[in-house]
Amino acid sequence: MSAIRVPVVEKIFSANDRMAVQNRQLLTNNKVLAINLMASPGAGKTSFILETIKQLSNQFKIGVIEGDTAPVTIDADKIISAGMPAVQINTGGNCHLDAVMMSDGLAQLPMDKLDLVIVENVGNLICPAAWDLGTHFNLLIASVPEGDDKPYKYPNIYRGLEILIINKVDLQPYVEFKMDYFRKGVEMLNPGLATFPVSCKTGEGIDAWIVWLIEKIKVFKNS
Amino acid sequence: MSAIRVPVVEKIFSANDRMAVQNRQLLTNNKVLAINLMASPGAGKTSFILETIKQLSNQFKIGVIEGDTAPVTIDADKIISAGMPAVQINTGGNCHLDAVMMSDGLAQLPMDKLDLVIVENVGNLICPAAWDLGTHFNLLIASVPEGDDKPYKYPNIYRGLEILIINKVDLQPYVEFKMDYFRKGVEMLNPGLATFPVSCKTGEGIDAWIVWLIEKIKVFKNS
Repeated sequence: MSAIRVPVVEKIFSANDRMAVQNRQLLTNNKVLAINLMASPGAGKTSFILETIKQLSNQFKIGVIEGDTAPVTIDADKIISAGMPAVQINTGGNCHLDAVMMSDGLAQLPMDKLDLVIVENVGNLICPAAWDLGTHFNLLIASVPEGDDKPYKYPNIYRGLEILIINKVDLQPYVEFKMDYFRKGVEMLNPGLATFPVSCKTGEGIDAWIVWLIEKIKVFKNS
Repeated sequence: MSAIRVPVVEKIFSANDRMAVQNRQLLTNNKVLAINLMASPGAGKTSFILETIKQLSNQFKIGVIEGDTAPVTIDADKIISAGMPAVQINTGGNCHLDAVMMSDGLAQLPMDKLDLVIVENVGNLICPAAWDLGTHFNLLIASVPEGDDKPYKYPNIYRGLEILIINKVDLQPYVEFKMDYFRKGVEMLNPGLATFPVSCKTGEGIDAWIVWLIEKIKVFKNS
């Protein structure tokens, strides 16, 4: 009986993770920074992207991938109206984007002309946190009317973030939201997380986010 | 060669659906009406349950099953403080409750003493819609600051509802929310859906919901 050599695979990547690595490599090779933008339904994802485009459009070209569970182009239409290329991905009822959908989305964007890709994930605080798309940063938009207990209730998504936006701060006078309690929960899960309280309605706080983002794009392009 | 009779199963239920049927039977046998309460994170699920308890506690006994993705008892503690029995279910990061979790929850409640069970599902507009728990009604809480486009973007959950609550109407002066556009979307997906605009903060609209619910409980108990 002859000896049989059993091949040992050091690390098993899932199909999703393999594809995510490829997506990230493609983006990095093209010097395109990519952000996976997550939030609850109605936290203001599209408004935040539009505000970011408005502030950056004279310096950078931004592509947007819009994930939706239904075949509606409400969000993608707004991006295109703002003068930037956008792709709509219908997940067919699925609760998150994955790296294959991301790859299909990237294939529709003019990669050689872009500086930044923003991926608007499906509105959901749970499932998107478990899927690497191949972006460079995970960003969450929390919003004031959702309440100050969300980090305590949805800890997984907070643990994996590089950027946190706290949107709709203009509504603070009208709802119960203890900023200290909210930020204490975040700090416990993700110490030192880059956090920007903003209002996409009044423009408050957007400057600080834009200064930070421009710096990140420049460092990335020169790396 | 003898003839072989192949058994034909008319309808194949999934394990979840079988368990859901059992849950519903248990509830019905005990004359306990059960509501599956779904919403985005931060739409006001717990506040709405507390308001409902406050209005009904002199007439009915209400048990609550709290679904959370993390081992926090923030919500269940509030229900118990309001004098009603509550069970906390930690889904272990999972994005929805299922009929097995529901069954485990029901086993912890004093079924023979209850008139109503409210199940607070995980905050999520997508996944909970696909899982029958064995309740009698599906209820969704939409909230004004989430925006008026949600029926268009998350149609599946709207299609399966018996009750829609539109919460936080007190915030209408401070956000863009076209009630006509929102309700047009709902009507398209679920014509004639019982809909109650409310504010759990100011109490506006709660009366109409309570009158409707009391009638449903009475009809159910006498059926």
